[in-house]
Amino acid sequence: MSTLEEKTLKTEHIYSGRIIQVQVDEVELPNGKTSTRELVKHPGAVAVIAITDDNKLVMVEQYRKPLEKVIVEIPAGKLEKGEEPALCARRELEEETGYECESLELVSSFYTSPGFADEIIHIYVAKGLKQKENAAGLDEDEFVNVLEISLDEALEFIKEKRIFDAKTIFGVQYLQIANLKE
Amino acid sequence: MSTLEEKTLKTEHIYSGRIIQVQVDEVELPNGKTSTRELVKHPGAVAVIAITDDNKLVMVEQYRKPLEKVIVEIPAGKLEKGEEPALCARRELEEETGYECESLELVSSFYTSPGFADEIIHIYVAKGLKQKENAAGLDEDEFVNVLEISLDEALEFIKEKRIFDAKTIFGVQYLQIANLKE
Repeated sequence: MSTLEEKTLKTEHIYSGRIIQVQVDEVELPNGKTSTRELVKHPGAVAVIAITDDNKLVMVEQYRKPLEKVIVEIPAGKLEKGEEPALCARRELEEETGYECESLELVSSFYTSPGFADEIIHIYVAKGLKQKENAAGLDEDEFVNVLEISLDEALEFIKEKRIFDAKTIFGVQYLQIANLKE
Repeated sequence: MSTLEEKTLKTEHIYSGRIIQVQVDEVELPNGKTSTRELVKHPGAVAVIAITDDNKLVMVEQYRKPLEKVIVEIPAGKLEKGEEPALCARRELEEETGYECESLELVSSFYTSPGFADEIIHIYVAKGLKQKENAAGLDEDEFVNVLEISLDEALEFIKEKRIFDAKTIFGVQYLQIANLKE
């Protein structure tokens, strides 16, 4: 057991929403003193670096209420309760872009905000994209524009802050590294 | 004005903590229907890709209560109210690692979890590291171990899930791209 660990003394449940839960834990620190930690519980998410046959990235442009901004992101979505991440990745890709894929490979999983939230995101690379007939549609409160952009365009979008979030910048770096290694 | 935007109809304040605030907004969707958005407000943060003269990355190992795990991260911390991000980066680097730096350059800013939180993180690269005499210490509820690791070790840490968060994986990929381009 690491000497860095904190022991939970008490949990106060603050809020239980559709997506997040909020709690404040009282903890015993490694030096025996106490402190509090504000924690957001999240069901976890998946995102898909979807690469077309001509090496373009499939992106979705959408409004993000927390930022009060429209940004361009790789397709992503929350895990449903008990849902297998790879199935969720295929579902979100189809719902948001209309694409199904021949190959889907997990390339990374990471926590987005380890200081206050337990959200983990599983990132897949999808290739062999084909537009699906009768693809499943978006959730009723989702509205997106689909874009297909080259790596150079994606790097430009980062400079312009149109691409502006962790998972999408990871996706762009991933393709950049893959291309540099070729 | 983008047709993707959502108009706030009502804001319900749920929680105001030391670090985060939680609210639920009722919004008008682009199609005129209404929905709710659960939002976490966060003061923002900085992180530092600190590179030693022998091309090693300075990392801090710490316990993260939301994950109930010890992970290895690049030095980082929350912005104090009104604090200039570059000053915050120098402060956090010194407090967590004892290093001061000759050069500090902003290399990216991104939102960590745009679906539910407004946390933005500003990432700096620090070079010309020198151990500072009488460096400022950690906050009283912070406990960390400092590590210096090579790029290859960092890539191994990612595989082992010891490096497991968005900003640190960004930092490792940043160095990987810089090295590949040389």
